[in-house]
Parts: sequence; structure tokens; C-alpha cells
Amino acid sequence: MGLKCFCSDNFSGVLPEVMKFLTDQNFGHEIPYGNDSFSKEMDIIFNKVFESTVDVYPVYNGSAANILSIASCISSYNSVLCSEFSHINTDECGALEKNIGCKIISIPTYDGKIKPQDIENYLVNFNNVHKSQPKLISISQSTELGTVYSKDEIQEICDLAHKYKLYVHVDGARIANALVYLDMSINELLVKTGVDVISFGGTKNGLMFGDAVVFLNTDLAKNFKYIRKQFLQLNSKSRFQALQFLSYFKNDLWLNAASHANEMAKLLAKEIVQIENITLTQIVEANEVFVRLPRKILNSDSLDGFFYVWDRNSSEVRFVCSFDTTENDIMKLLELIRLNI
Amino acid sequence: MGLKCFCSDNFSGVLPEVMKFLTDQNFGHEIPYGNDSFSKEMDIIFNKVFESTVDVYPVYNGSAANILSIASCISSYNSVLCSEFSHINTDECGALEKNIGCKIISIPTYDGKIKPQDIENYLVNFNNVHKSQPKLISISQSTELGTVYSKDEIQEICDLAHKYKLYVHVDGARIANALVYLDMSINELLVKTGVDVISFGGTKNGLMFGDAVVFLNTDLAKNFKYIRKQFLQLNSKSRFQALQFLSYFKNDLWLNAASHANEMAKLLAKEIVQIENITLTQIVEANEVFVRLPRKILNSDSLDGFFYVWDRNSSEVRFVCSFDTTENDIMKLLELIRLNI
Amino acid sequence: MGLKCFCSDNFSGVLPEVMKFLTDQNFGHEIPYGNDSFSKEMDIIFNKVFESTVDVYPVYNGSAANILSIASCISSYNSVLCSEFSHINTDECGALEKNIGCKIISIPTYDGKIKPQDIENYLVNFNNVHKSQPKLISISQSTELGTVYSKDEIQEICDLAHKYKLYVHVDGARIANALVYLDMSINELLVKTGVDVISFGGTKNGLMFGDAVVFLNTDLAKNFKYIRKQFLQLNSKSRFQALQFLSYFKNDLWLNAASHANEMAKLLAKEIVQIENITLTQIVEANEVFVRLPRKILNSDSLDGFFYVWDRNSSEVRFVCSFDTTENDIMKLLELIRLNI
Amino acid sequence: MGLKCFCSDNFSGVLPEVMKFLTDQNFGHEIPYGNDSFSKEMDIIFNKVFESTVDVYPVYNGSAANILSIASCISSYNSVLCSEFSHINTDECGALEKNIGCKIISIPTYDGKIKPQDIENYLVNFNNVHKSQPKLISISQSTELGTVYSKDEIQEICDLAHKYKLYVHVDGARIANALVYLDMSINELLVKTGVDVISFGGTKNGLMFGDAVVFLNTDLAKNFKYIRKQFLQLNSKSRFQALQFLSYFKNDLWLNAASHANEMAKLLAKEIVQIENITLTQIVEANEVFVRLPRKILNSDSLDGFFYVWDRNSSEVRFVCSFDTTENDIMKLLELIRLNI
Repeated sequence: MGLKCFCSDNFSGVLPEVMKFLTDQNFGHEIPYGNDSFSKEMDIIFNKVFESTVDVYPVYNGSAANILSIASCISSYNSVLCSEFSHINTDECGALEKNIGCKIISIPTYDGKIKPQDIENYLVNFNNVHKSQPKLISISQSTELGTVYSKDEIQEICDLAHKYKLYVHVDGARIANALVYLDMSINELLVKTGVDVISFGGTKNGLMFGDAVVFLNTDLAKNFKYIRKQFLQLNSKSRFQALQFLSYFKNDLWLNAASHANEMAKLLAKEIVQIENITLTQIVEANEVFVRLPRKILNSDSLDGFFYVWDRNSSEVRFVCSFDTTENDIMKLLELIRLNI
Repeated sequence: MGLKCFCSDNFSGVLPEVMKFLTDQNFGHEIPYGNDSFSKEMDIIFNKVFESTVDVYPVYNGSAANILSIASCISSYNSVLCSEFSHINTDECGALEKNIGCKIISIPTYDGKIKPQDIENYLVNFNNVHKSQPKLISISQSTELGTVYSKDEIQEICDLAHKYKLYVHVDGARIANALVYLDMSINELLVKTGVDVISFGGTKNGLMFGDAVVFLNTDLAKNFKYIRKQFLQLNSKSRFQALQFLSYFKNDLWLNAASHANEMAKLLAKEIVQIENITLTQIVEANEVFVRLPRKILNSDSLDGFFYVWDRNSSEVRFVCSFDTTENDIMKLLELIRLNI
Repeated sequence: MGLKCFCSDNFSGVLPEVMKFLTDQNFGHEIPYGNDSFSKEMDIIFNKVFESTVDVYPVYNGSAANILSIASCISSYNSVLCSEFSHINTDECGALEKNIGCKIISIPTYDGKIKPQDIENYLVNFNNVHKSQPKLISISQSTELGTVYSKDEIQEICDLAHKYKLYVHVDGARIANALVYLDMSINELLVKTGVDVISFGGTKNGLMFGDAVVFLNTDLAKNFKYIRKQFLQLNSKSRFQALQFLSYFKNDLWLNAASHANEMAKLLAKEIVQIENITLTQIVEANEVFVRLPRKILNSDSLDGFFYVWDRNSSEVRFVCSFDTTENDIMKLLELIRLNI
Repeated sequence: MGLKCFCSDNFSGVLPEVMKFLTDQNFGHEIPYGNDSFSKEMDIIFNKVFESTVDVYPVYNGSAANILSIASCISSYNSVLCSEFSHINTDECGALEKNIGCKIISIPTYDGKIKPQDIENYLVNFNNVHKSQPKLISISQSTELGTVYSKDEIQEICDLAHKYKLYVHVDGARIANALVYLDMSINELLVKTGVDVISFGGTKNGLMFGDAVVFLNTDLAKNFKYIRKQFLQLNSKSRFQALQFLSYFKNDLWLNAASHANEMAKLLAKEIVQIENITLTQIVEANEVFVRLPRKILNSDSLDGFFYVWDRNSSEVRFVCSFDTTENDIMKLLELIRLNI
């Protein structure tokens, strides 16, 4: 695959700094299962990054981070409220239902963000034994549609949730992209607003594997170590997850990587709308670009694999930029599109 | 941790050849979720190694390989028969029960190996609606007690299982150590005998993460891709699992690594019994050494962390050798023991 | 509770003929767990009623019949398609998700009936590992909105389902009311059209407890006895369920009971719309009457408990007639409404 | 089935007093799902019987009472300690594992009763993430071997449990038989000793269906209503469960029924040992008689169905007496045995 493909940011490899650190530190023996010296360092770094006392548990991937985060907050007779486009609802093959046994209430949204007034419509039937009891709101930051919740929007959702004694979970598979867009610290955006637990993504932004469950509400972490083990998410050679996060946070590598991806998305958006009959369908805030394309392009063989078809009916496609997307990659993509229009 | 610690082989790091290969191949974009070019190569290599048509699915760790292997074979109303010492019974925090909902029937054994005549005692109550229906026999090769099933022993278990329409699963967390001990190909040992599915371990023998479910009975793999996804075991940047296996199999790296670990265990066993009041409690066939120690050693501060206490009551401890254990490590260990006796 | 209350048909007691039969046959010993002589008779009667070879398994209640029916057809990675108003979606506290682990896809409908063209929109993403795989369509007959699918409508849904290799389940909590309305045999309506499995309700139509799972596609029943036991739905003194069904089917008791309830609903509908500002919101086909009422009535203390508030926002309420509803009950209800308007 | 069969007490029908009460009270409408007037009465009666504040939830059967009791106390990463012969371990087709996802630790016992010193051996590995965490001790009273724990024995188990922060569950499928044997109130035996939750059986002692979960530790009942619904154990026409318990407790009907069954067992035991080569294998305390029989009897066609073969290898069988067993039934049974010896 010579060209970069823009289908998703997980087509990319590993940040060179991360790979080098893994190699450099690959010697000697370490206690496994999260008790190695690097994992202890990692815990300290996460506390610094969040400027708060947090509990951190690396797991295998983003789906696992989502499901285990939520499993620590609710029971099977509860329901989870989220956007209709949320990853937990559409892209995890029913993992939430299988692993927790709870119901998902998916809320319609045009931009990937759920609004307090819409959420509140579903905060009903408390105490009715026939109904799954609402207990958690899950939002994605940045969203699956490339948009970003403002701090105020998150604050309102958290306030609503806590008023009804619900928890708030953030699917942060692309949290770095959101932070960079908002130019805000994670403390400001997620700790101060009262979020309870985060799926802290790294893989899409240049790690090899191993997103983390980060508890801001550390009471919820009380028995999490057993949940992680029983849900098959405890790694023996844990040092290699810790090492990734250690280098990820060093010298703002994570924010720089996300910043670059966002910049590339902005560039792509700016240029692609110059082409006739191509229009943005979502505003570009993080590293994703959603556009409506001429059907001819959608079906062009030579463009096959260069974007993700979001909705074939409306000719809407998604481009995602990565830490390793270059201006040159974008220029080649645009050229290819122009050639095929 | 200056000294190697012998607690378990997962205290070790990553084989340098594997780490180098990961680094060398870390460029460009690849399709995620198992559809990358390296995963396709990996499939081919596995077929070669097994000299048979097999279906291969990397997952996060050994527990996941075990649980998902078994989940593909049975229903919640079935039972799994295994040794009382088997990892699925004692070391996975109830993952089998949680994820499959089935019952474990644990069979007593003095050497970690379950015997056909013992197993057959539990092959009863078929068609009795009140009883979990036996459907799978799981054996560990090499066992949790460092012993190794002979080909004949496996053949007898497979014959018994298939006579009663049960499946056979092999927990191969340390399969390479068994193969090296028996000096036998995996085809000879597991394919020809009729094993249905294997947890093919690599982590304990020098990989970073990612054991694999290998179906020999490929009918069982029909819907496995959904199971893997729903059980949170599908990795996006799958190439980095494939790359590990590619280098693991290159130039017999895996067998050489296991061979070295076995040799070191043999050396340790030979030397340690020279020390008075230390006796082997299991024969040493793979890379583990079980001994009864004077209680003084068991409780010695300066030896804390150098072995795993298997049974405090009987002063039995376990030493495990890794691909990176050296003769020097062993000599230092012995010296330390002698100093404290 | 002097007056009948119209909230639901399960406010009623047991058909006197059924209670008498239970009493008359209450002597001697019988083999438990479905192996009694009455259960064998019951099996024969069900085969006669269905004019087909069917497998019958009584369970505790309608929710259990629904969940166990579906559990016998699908895996956790599958999805179930149903109306947004279906009982499995809205009134079982997430039982489908908890017990099967699968996803529910709820389809919007204005009259409780899902339409093939709407269903087909959701028959997508086959073979996509990230998506729950559609495997079963569940319809309610009669529906939760008191409407009844015609034979042609069921035929079209079955044809669509089987074209895509999906199963069809019918939630028949009120199946007798539908049959009476259509004046059609269950063979004609559900066997000939190709339905796979039915929750055969009886409780709402005058039994004490114990709806039945009836497999028309008997291949699906192969391991059902274990599922019933493990899901806690196997009763020891099974004769008392069999006895209920034996008397239920005797002299068309079941159809007469449903016929009466339907007639009462028709009468209520005819009379209630004579009252000003009360309008039907659904056509009345079975034993339920949905109307929009003046808000004053909705909130009237003296009418509290005489209807079920379906949607407070739109002042829509539900009345349900039972086997024991009398014309007098209806006249008293209407009078009470008129007094409060 | 002319003769009574002694296989189990659930071969019997319904106590005539109970059936009559069901018939007499079968009129009018009642609020369903546990909110009827009889259920409220039932709650009061249970509080009286227990001489304590308890929370009562009828469910379908004994297995359901066991599983739901335990589900309210523990998480999937916990383990349940019980006798190897306990119903939850051997006779529920893996329901505990399926519905809760936890591990069962079965403890060997020769008389069905587990001893504190044996239990304590399993109270280990707390805080070890690889091990299911012990959280509940379940005992059966009377036991599956017809024996009865004394108050002191229960007190010791409760003290041990609470010392380690475990809960105590009593499988009381035959609780009345135990109370009668001990001539003790349930308050004295189970409330004062500190039991947390009971499966309060009635079916084996003459009810039609519907054992109850009774919480003595009412904190555990906080969310139980949702668990009952989601586990498919909430009955709509709940009055018919309440009515059964109301008549069960009236005039000590329950204790009289159990007393009779115990007496019959004592008589059977006394007489059967007069026959040569028949010996008791357990002391007879409740309503069960365990004996070793000549193999000829075990295999006699004319005795087929008159006892339950407990262990074919050792020619051990079980006889159970019911509320409706008569002296005449016993004499006929003994005669039949003598004829075949």
C-alpha cells in the first residue's frame, strides 16, 4: 500500500518515538500483570496529565476500554444513553449487550453530539420494574462525525446526568484530537466538568495497542482489577503498554501527533470543497472530514480504499487523517479525485 | 530488577529478533482488523508450521485464547472437563463462567495430566436435563506442573472425547516447550491425534502480546470472527501481531527459544537437588522446576521474588526458566539459596 | 377492587373451567419436570390445535416465552429486529440483552406492525464483523397497539426473513384474540406462512401462569430442554401447567374467551367515541382500545386505575378487555368518564 | 400411577387446603406483578412467620430462588462455596454460572453438611486478581442427603462467613422439614444466626409452584425487583402465588405437612432396616431416607420408579416422603421390596 488511504487513522503504524522506546527498554525481567516498574511510572504520569488523582488500567483496545469502563458503573438492568452513531452502539458487534447485559438507548443526532434536552426525554420510567433503568450517559469526544463537544456542552451533560444520579463516560478514542482543537487541558475539559470515567485512546493516534480505562471518579475503580481480569483484558507483559504511554506523553508527543492530524484534516477540507460537486456534511473540528461526493467518485475503482463510505445512499464518505498523513498524501488524493470526477 | 527472577516466564521481555522486526516493518498504512498483508502472510506460515489447513485468530493473551477457543465449541449448558490445576480453572478469575456461562468439571491429578480413565468417570448424565452436558476436554501442554503429555496420551484423550462427541482443546501457553521436549512436530502431536482447537501461546516464550486461537477443526471457526469482535479481542493494528508471529517462526526462533528455556530448567533441576533437603516434586520435562524447599528458604527475605510459592503448606515452590535465562542466572540463584539454607 | 379496571387483561383471574380442572385432577403422584401423563396429553392436543408437528415447552410467563424462544434461534453476536413498541424491547427490563447478550434493532411503526420494506432497510452489514448480524424478526400478534397482522402481512415478513436466512418469532401473548379477529386457524396463520417459533400466551386470556414456547420449526428445539432448565424455566409440578392447557383447549374455551374480550373491546370503542373529545388512535381489532382523552379525564382521581396511560404528552390511554369483562362493566366505565368530562 | 413413588416429594400434588383457597379467591380484578392485595397480605404474614422485617419475592421455582438470591449478593468475579451435593452445584444445569457468571467452589462432605474448618480452607486468595473472590456460602437446610444443620452449626458458618465479609444463603427447598425436625422457629434458626437470604421452598411441601426469595438482610434487596424482572421471574397474576402462601401459613399447614412427611420417613427408615442387607447410609432427620440396597432390588423391574438411584456403583438409593405419603404407601413399598429381594 504505497499511498496513505484516509479510511481511518488506525491504518497508520506506530509513532517512531514510541517504537524506539519499546526497543530501548526491552531488557531484563519485570513483574507482570501491571506490577512492573514502568506501570508505576505510567500511573504517575497519568496523574500529572490529568492534574488530578486518577486510576488507570490499560486494556487491549478501544472497544474493551468502552465496555469495561461502563461495566464498572452499571448493572445489567440499567440502560446506557448514547448517540445513534456512537461506537458502542454501531461498531462493537453487540459487545455492550453481551458483556454487561444492559440495554442501549440510542439518541438521534445530526452532528454526532447528543443534546441535554434530547437526553432528558429518555430520563423516564425510573422505578418502573419493566423498564431498563437509565444509569449512564456515554459521549464520544471527538465524535464519530469529527465534531467536538465544547466544555460547556460537556458541563451541561454532566450536570444533567448527576442531577438524575447517572454517570458520564467519555469514549476518548480520539480525545487528543479534541483537546488540541479546543486548546484545553484534559483537566479543564473532563475533570472539572465532572466526567466519571474515560476510554483514553492512543491507538488511533500512534500507539501499537492498548487504550486505557481512566477513572476520574475513583470510587468506581474499587473492584475494577477483577473485572479487567475476568473480561480477559489483563496483559502479562504489561510493561510494554506502560512504555507506550510513557513515550506518548513525553514532550507532548500525543498532542503534537493529534495536532498534525487535525491540521491535515483542515487542509484536506479546505481543498476538497474547491472541487465541484463536493460539499462538507459536517464541520471539520478534529481529524475527520465528511463530504458528499459525486456518485461516480464513490464507485470509481481507482479510488477504492481511499475513503470510508459512510452512507452509500447519500454518497457521503469519510476521510480521516493520521499522525503520519503528509501534505503530499493529500495533494495526491485530491489529484486522484479530480482525475476521476 | 537486576537478577532474573524465575517466578514465571512472563517476567521476561521480547525476543530481540521480534522487536527488531516490529521496528523494521513499522511504516506505511495497512488495512486494520486482521486484513493487513502481514496477517495474510501469517496465515500461510501457520498452515506451514502445522502442515495442515488451520484457521488462525490472534487475541490479546492466553486467557482470551483459552476462553474464545472454548466458546467456539460449546454452549452455556455444557461443561468443560479439565485438570484441577488448569489455568482456566484456577487463574482466570472465573472468565470461563462469565464469558461462556458453562460449568467447569475439575479432575484431580498428581502431575497435571488428566488420565482417560479418570475423565471417563465424568462422562455421565448425558441427556439428563438437570446436569450440565459434558462437551469439551481441555488439556494443557506442557501442563501447569511442567509435565508433558506424550503423543499416545493425547491420542487416548482425543479418542475418548470423540467417542463421546466431545471436543478437545489444548491450552498451549507453553506448547513450544512441549514440542521441543518431545522432539516432535505440532502436526504429529496435535493434528494427527485429532485435537480440535489450540490456544497457541507465544507471550511466555518471547512475544510481546497476542496468543492465537488456532482451529484444527476449521468447522468450529465458522462464526469465530464475530465471537472475537464481541469478546473485545479484535485488534485494529493487527499487523503488529502478525509481525511477531512471522519473526517467531523464522529460522525456528520459537523452538530455539523454548529449547533454551528447557535446557536451563534441566540444569537448574540437576543442580538444585544437590542442595540438602531440596527435592523435586515433579519430573522436569519442559521449562518448569517444582521443588520442596526448607521452610526457612521459603520465608527468606533475600529470596523473596525468586520463585513462585506453589503450596505454602507443603513448602513447594515453582521455578520457571525463560528464553533469556542464563547459566549465570542459575548459578547466582543456587548460590543465594545455599547462602540462606 | 369492585370494578373491573381495563388497565390490562392480566388484572383478571383464572377461567373457572380451568380452575375446576386443576382442582378435579389434583390427586396422586406424577413424574415431575414435564414427564407427567398430563404433559404428554398436552403435547398431543397442541399438535392437534396446530394441525402440525410442533414441540411445546411451558415456561413461567410471557417474557420467558419470548426470551427462550429467541435464545433457541440466535447467538449473542446476532441482532433481533422488532417493532419499537414490542414487549421484548420496552417491557422486559433488558431481559433479551441480559439472557442472550444480543442487540435489539427497534423499527418505528405507527400501528404496532412492522412492514417488510422498513425491515429490509435493516438487513444490511452481513459479514461485517463490527456489526451485530441480523438473525431473527419478532412480531407481536395481536400487536401491543391492539392491531392484527393479516395472513398476507405475516407471509411477506416470513418470506423476507427466510430469503435472508433469518428466523421469525411471534410474540403471541394475545394470539387467541388475533385468531378470533381473523377467524382463521393457527395452522393457516402461522404454520402455513412459515413462522419458526411462537410465544403461545394463555395467561392474559384466563390461565393462572405458564405461557408456552411452541416450535413450528422443530429443528430449533433440539437442545431447548437444557436452555429451559438453565434459564430457570423448568417447573417441577409440570402437571399443573399441562392441566391448564388441557382445559383451555377443551370445547374451544380459549377462542370463546378471546372472542368475548374482542366483542367487549368493540363495544367499548363504539360507545366511547360517542363522548365528545374522545377519539380512537388505533383501529380496534383485538381486545385493546386506544383513545385520546381530554386531559381532565387523564388526571381525574376517580378514574385513576381504570386505564393505562400510554402517552401522557398526547393524552393517549389504553383500555383492555378480558374474558371476564361484562357489558355492565363497560357501561359503568363510560358513565364514570361522562361524569368526569 | 396408582402407588406413591418415593422418588421425590415433588411427585405429589397440591395441598387440598391450598387448592381450595385458590378456587375460593378466584374472582374480580387485582393489580398484577406483585401489587395485588393478597401479595401485600403475604408480605405481612412472612414478617410474622419470621418474627422479623424481611423482604419477600416469589419466583417460579427452587432453582430460580437459589440463583436470584445469590445474584443479589455477589458479582461475576466472586465465587460461591457450597457442598459438593448442593442443588446449585449438581442439579441446575449450570444456571449459576450462566446467570451470574461466577465460579462454584464445591466442598466435599459425607453427610451433605459443610463444616467451618473445611470451608475455611477455601477462604484464601483474597485480593489475588487471578482468582474468583469468595463472597458467599450456600448451605441447604435440610440438606440434599436428608440431614439437618443444628442451630450451632449454622451459627458457626454465619460467624465464619461474616468474619471474612461473606454472605450466607440457605437453600430452603425443604426448610419446613428442618424446622419441624429441630422443633425450632425460623427466627431462632435463621434470623438470629445471621443468615442473609433464603430460598424459601414450598413446592416440595405441597404448593403448586412459586418458591420465594426471602431477604433477612434487607439491604441486599435494594434492586432486587429489577433482577427478578430481568431474570424472567416476575409473574403477572401474582395473587395466585400470594394466595398459596397465605393458606400455607394458615393454621400451621406448612409445618403440619412437613411434620407428616418427616414422620413417614422415620417410619420407613425404621421398617426398611428390618429387611436383610438393607442399611441406612445417612441418618434420617428430615423426610428423606438413604439406604444401600441389594443390587437385585436396584435393578428389579417391579420396583422401577419407586426410588431414586443416588449412586448406582454403591447401590445407594433415596426415598422421599411427602405430605401425602400414607402408612399404607410405606407398607406396600416394603412388601414390594421384600417380594423382590
